[in-house]
Amino acid sequence: MIQAEIISVGDELLTGIVVNTNAAYIGQKLTELGYQVSWITTVGDNKEKLASVLEEAYNRASLIVVTGGLGPTHDDITKKVVAEFFDSKIIFKPDILSKIEERFNRMGREMAEVNREQAEVPEKAELIENELGTAPGFVFAREGRTFFILPGVPSEMQRMMEKSVLPRLMREKDRIMVRSKLLLTTGIVESDLYEKIKTLLCEFPEVKLAFLPKTSGVVVRLMAHGLSAEEYLLQAEARIRERVGKFIYGEGETTIEKVVADLLLKKKLTIAVAESCTGGLVSHKLTNVPGSSNYFNRGIIAYSNKAKVEVLGVPEKTIKIHGAVSPETALAMAEGVRLISKTDIGISTTGIAGPGGGTPVKPVGLVYIGYADSKRSFFEEHHFTRDRWWNKERSAATALDLIRRVLLDYV
Amino acid sequence: MIQAEIISVGDELLTGIVVNTNAAYIGQKLTELGYQVSWITTVGDNKEKLASVLEEAYNRASLIVVTGGLGPTHDDITKKVVAEFFDSKIIFKPDILSKIEERFNRMGREMAEVNREQAEVPEKAELIENELGTAPGFVFAREGRTFFILPGVPSEMQRMMEKSVLPRLMREKDRIMVRSKLLLTTGIVESDLYEKIKTLLCEFPEVKLAFLPKTSGVVVRLMAHGLSAEEYLLQAEARIRERVGKFIYGEGETTIEKVVADLLLKKKLTIAVAESCTGGLVSHKLTNVPGSSNYFNRGIIAYSNKAKVEVLGVPEKTIKIHGAVSPETALAMAEGVRLISKTDIGISTTGIAGPGGGTPVKPVGLVYIGYADSKRSFFEEHHFTRDRWWNKERSAATALDLIRRVLLDYV
Repeated sequence: MIQAEIISVGDELLTGIVVNTNAAYIGQKLTELGYQVSWITTVGDNKEKLASVLEEAYNRASLIVVTGGLGPTHDDITKKVVAEFFDSKIIFKPDILSKIEERFNRMGREMAEVNREQAEVPEKAELIENELGTAPGFVFAREGRTFFILPGVPSEMQRMMEKSVLPRLMREKDRIMVRSKLLLTTGIVESDLYEKIKTLLCEFPEVKLAFLPKTSGVVVRLMAHGLSAEEYLLQAEARIRERVGKFIYGEGETTIEKVVADLLLKKKLTIAVAESCTGGLVSHKLTNVPGSSNYFNRGIIAYSNKAKVEVLGVPEKTIKIHGAVSPETALAMAEGVRLISKTDIGISTTGIAGPGGGTPVKPVGLVYIGYADSKRSFFEEHHFTRDRWWNKERSAATALDLIRRVLLDYV
Repeated sequence: MIQAEIISVGDELLTGIVVNTNAAYIGQKLTELGYQVSWITTVGDNKEKLASVLEEAYNRASLIVVTGGLGPTHDDITKKVVAEFFDSKIIFKPDILSKIEERFNRMGREMAEVNREQAEVPEKAELIENELGTAPGFVFAREGRTFFILPGVPSEMQRMMEKSVLPRLMREKDRIMVRSKLLLTTGIVESDLYEKIKTLLCEFPEVKLAFLPKTSGVVVRLMAHGLSAEEYLLQAEARIRERVGKFIYGEGETTIEKVVADLLLKKKLTIAVAESCTGGLVSHKLTNVPGSSNYFNRGIIAYSNKAKVEVLGVPEKTIKIHGAVSPETALAMAEGVRLISKTDIGISTTGIAGPGGGTPVKPVGLVYIGYADSKRSFFEEHHFTRDRWWNKERSAATALDLIRRVLLDYV
C-alpha cells in the first residue's frame, strides 16, 4: 500500500482550542482511496519544527497532505517553510492578486493590505484554487513524493480536497483497491463481541477487523484490500451477522435513534416515552431525528413520585410496595404513558443514575426499562456501572434498542 | 517552559473514524498548567511505529502523554511496546484481576476471558486506577522524563487525567508559574464579545486572551506567565466583568445547568419544564446534575398539540389562533407546567428546530422561551440559524440561562 501522512500546523491545535477534525476528514478520504495513512503529526507555528516534520514525512511516505498556516498573518509560516524545503523562490503573481481583489469586490469589502501576500507563491509549486477563501493551495512533487499544501479552515480545505486533490489521486494508477464497512452493534460489550467473532480473524485473514467502542455501542470495522476486497467483506459480514446479527442495529454512519425512527415510520407506529432516570435523554434522542413529530407524541419525565402518580397514573401502592425503581413501576409507567397518549407504543425508564441514591439491594446503575403496546407489556433489568453520564447514555441507548428489537421480533 | 508531547495510538484515528478529541483535551489541560505542548503525533496499532515515536518524544520532551491501545483486543499494543521501551517485564497482578472481576460481578456479568490480560502490567510502572473501565493506566519515569500511558476511551482518559495526572503535575515544583482562567459566557456571539473587550488586549499585554466557541456559548481563556501572573489575571478579569459581566455564567469547568442547579438549591426553589422544540434536552441537562431530584420535579415534552392541550392545559384556542410556535403558547406552556407540578418555576420552549416546518413568517430557528413563577410570566424570542442539532442545543442553553438571569435579577 502507498504510505500517506498528514501534517497539521497550528498552535491552536496544540493548545486544544481547536479539535483536529481536518486530520480525521483527510484520513478518512485517503483511506477510502486505498492509501495507508501511517502518521498524523501536529506542530505549532514554528519554522524549525515544521521543517523537521516535512523532512521526516519525506523519508517515510509518498503522499503528504499538509494543512494550516497559510493565512495572511505573521504566524502563518507554512508557505515559506515548504518553499524552502523544496528550494523554491517565492514570486509575486499579479493574476492571483486580481482574483483576490475580485473576491473582496464581490463581498463589497475593501481588501486588507495583508492579503496582498497571498499572491506571493512558491515558483516551483503547482497552485490549487481556493474557491472559499484567499489562500491558494500548493502541490510539490519530487522523487515520487507528492505534497499537497492546503489551508486549515475546514470548509476551504474540504472544498479543495473534493475539487482538486481527490480527483487527482483517483486518477493515479498504482492505487490499491480497498473496501471498508462499519457494522454498528449495541447491547453487547467489546470483550463479548470479540469472543464471539474472534475465530473469524483466522477464517478471513484478508479482512482486518477493528472494534471501536462508542457510547451507543461497539462499532466493528471491516477492511479488505485487493481486487476481491468487496467479496471478502461480504463473506466476513455474513459470518459476523450469523453470530451477532441481532446486536447489529445498522451500518455506516447511522444512529440507533435514526434506525428506530425509520422502523416506526415504516410500520406507521406512534410512541410516547415515560422517563425517570434518563431525565429526558430518550426523548431528546428520538426528537434529534428530523420529522420526529410523525411518530413521537410526547415524553413525560416523571422525576418525582408525585409526577409518576399524577401524570402517568402509576398506582401509589405500586411505588409504596415495590419502590420507584422496580419492574412494577417501569411497567406501570410504560402502560400509563401509552394510555394517556393513545400511542401504539409506550416505553419507560426508571433506575438509579447515581452517584447518590444507591442501596445494597438497588445499587447505582440498576435500571428497569418498561415496554407496552396493545398486545403485551414487559420489562428488562439492566446493570450499568459507570458514572451518571454513562448510566443515562447507556440506559437511553438500551431503551431505544429495546424498541428496535421488538419491532424486528427479536424480543 | 517545559516541553510536552502527546502521542495518540489507534488505526481509527488515522483512518478518520474517530476524531482525536483526546489530544485537544490533553493539550488544553497541559497548556493551562504551563507546559509547552510542541508535538502531537498519531500512529496506528503498529509496534515499530509506536516504538519510534516513543523514542523521538523521549529525545524532545520531558512530559509525554500517550493515549489509546490499552484495550483487551489483539490490536491493542501500547502496553507491550511501552514496557519494552522501558525494559520492563510484564507481570500478572492478582489484585488487579480481583478488582476487574469485582467490577463484572457488580454488573451481574461474567468476565470475558480476554479481560484477564488487563491484570498483566509492566513491572516498572506505577499504576493509575481506571474507575470507569478495566484497563489501568501507567506512569514511567526515567532521566527526567515522565510518560503517562492512558486508555483511549475519552471518559476513562479524562477521569484519570483529573483524578491522577493533573493533581500530580500540579505538585511538580519546576513548572513555570502560569495562571489561566476560563470565563464562560453565553448569549453573546464571538465577534460581539471580541468588540467589547478587544481594547483590553493592549491594556494588559501580559494577559493572553483566547476565544473558544462552544455550543453552550463562548469561553474566554485568560493566561499569564511569571510571578505576577495571578495579579494580572485578576485585573484583566475585573475589567472584562465590567464590560460583559452579565453574560458570564461561570468559571472553569462548570456548566450552565450546574450553575442553575446551585442557584435553585440555594434559593430552595423547585422547577418544572415544558418542552416542545428542545424535545427533552432542557430536562436532560438539568437532570445531568447529581441530586437534581431536589429541585427538578418533572418535564413534559409536549410534542403534539394534543399533548400541549391535554397535559399542560394550553387552551386549544391559543394554539388555533397563534400557533404552537408563538409567545402565547410558550407562556401557556410555562404557566401550565408550573400549575400542574406545583413548582416555584415553570419554563418552556417552543420553536422550529428544522430542517422542515419553517415558513417565511416563522422560519427555522425561531424559538420562544416562556418563564413563569408566582409573581410573573414572560417570554423571550430567539433566532438561531444553523441545523436542527445546533438549534436544539442553543435553545436549551438559552432557556437555562434565562433561569439564571431571572434568579440573579438580570431580567
